[in-house]
Amino acid sequence: MAVKISRQDALNYHSKGRPGKIEVVATKETKTQRDLALAYSPGVAEPCLEIAADKEKVYSYTAKGNLVAVITNGTAVLGLGDIGPEAAKPVMEGKGILFKIFADIDVFDIELNTKDIDEFIDVVKALEPTFGGINLEDIKSPDCFEIESRLRKELNIPVMHDDQHGTAIISGSALLNALEVVHKKIDNVRVVVSGAGASALSCAQLYVYLGVKRENIIMIDRAGVIRKDRSGLDDYKKPFATEEDVHTLAEALKDADVFLGLSKGNIVTKEMVKT
Amino acid sequence: MAVKISRQDALNYHSKGRPGKIEVVATKETKTQRDLALAYSPGVAEPCLEIAADKEKVYSYTAKGNLVAVITNGTAVLGLGDIGPEAAKPVMEGKGILFKIFADIDVFDIELNTKDIDEFIDVVKALEPTFGGINLEDIKSPDCFEIESRLRKELNIPVMHDDQHGTAIISGSALLNALEVVHKKIDNVRVVVSGAGASALSCAQLYVYLGVKRENIIMIDRAGVIRKDRSGLDDYKKPFATEEDVHTLAEALKDADVFLGLSKGNIVTKEMVKT
Repeated sequence: MAVKISRQDALNYHSKGRPGKIEVVATKETKTQRDLALAYSPGVAEPCLEIAADKEKVYSYTAKGNLVAVITNGTAVLGLGDIGPEAAKPVMEGKGILFKIFADIDVFDIELNTKDIDEFIDVVKALEPTFGGINLEDIKSPDCFEIESRLRKELNIPVMHDDQHGTAIISGSALLNALEVVHKKIDNVRVVVSGAGASALSCAQLYVYLGVKRENIIMIDRAGVIRKDRSGLDDYKKPFATEEDVHTLAEALKDADVFLGLSKGNIVTKEMVKT
Repeated sequence: MAVKISRQDALNYHSKGRPGKIEVVATKETKTQRDLALAYSPGVAEPCLEIAADKEKVYSYTAKGNLVAVITNGTAVLGLGDIGPEAAKPVMEGKGILFKIFADIDVFDIELNTKDIDEFIDVVKALEPTFGGINLEDIKSPDCFEIESRLRKELNIPVMHDDQHGTAIISGSALLNALEVVHKKIDNVRVVVSGAGASALSCAQLYVYLGVKRENIIMIDRAGVIRKDRSGLDDYKKPFATEEDVHTLAEALKDADVFLGLSKGNIVTKEMVKT
């Protein structure tokens, strides 16, 4: 059952005491003059020199290896849309907390004041020495595809776009489990995907990788079923356009084995499920 | 007395246990399903919407107001010079710890992979929504002057360059105290400044602001006394060029009241002090 929380509960939680949800603390002793001489000057010069001589040693003497940037420009935040980088900050801090409590990974949440794809990429490239990995968050589609694919090529640290790959991994595992439970073969299940944003396209791509036949997927966006005869399809949707004579969600769901809902809620009726 | 630490002590301190010196932790409860529903979805949507409606509320619902970026490109680190952004990271983490233990301010240490002034400025401008303030660190002179003055103009959050303003504030207070102890008037003391980098120039500027007469300051860089008849002086050094017939540190120190050493050590001899 869903937990009940009020608007005021949520605002109080975020503002009580020190505003926000995170702080940055020292992991080593810092009590004595000797501790500080090790942590800062003159002791700090030694790890600096080691890293200057061999850049890879930054992973031995700093937090870089366990430090992930959760980066957004606030253009597609939760279901709220383009609310800007400041308004995205509570979500990014929250995501940082999830990284920390479930994986003990440290996160700097980074909110960028740019909607320009090239500038976004330039900033993340400049930030590369700071982080061990990049987790892109809540960037509007299709910008997120170009940002993610270019950064993967141009950076030497791992890059993930949570809305694409996080969702795809979770839903892919759920698919494999569900098929095992109902004894269906992945290579002949029929899949209906409602939505054609970052997460929907990535899930569909992963499903194909896992064995679903591309011709067994029907994808539906705001304009209806994505069909080969529709004009103006972008390069991301085109591979999932169907040749079947299907024009509505209800028609698509007839004899479907899997429904993946990544648009809005309450669009599937009991009658549709019965078919 | 200086604390004695060995090279190996310093390397052990930085690498033992979890490498590096910082971690990012949650400040609010995160133990129950209800906590997480407040910290992340669905509760987090409420502060997001509040901030989307009034950007200033980011200070009420996130850590922004207490969060400082300590930013460098690693071009002038400690006395080590241009060792690069990765090798600068131990220093920046250390500075973050000093902020935390002495002022309870949270720091994200940010190391940038760029030596280009415009690109540095563009990145910091893009980062503005993330932070409550910017602390520039260990950027080579004179780039640091342009970066700092342009960012002060173009950002709506405070910008400080620690090597300039931090050093100037500390040494300015020391000067005022020292003059009180020896009963000298600030408007007729003669000051010799060894060095003409970011900190030396900023200290000299603050001294003038505090009452030292510009014509009573003699500044010396690698090429010798900064004199009006020297060609090729940049706009930052020019205001401190002297017309006096002084050509060496020893000559400058004759009858000087204040010596400010911001170059290398052991350049002042006992004989010089006697004059």
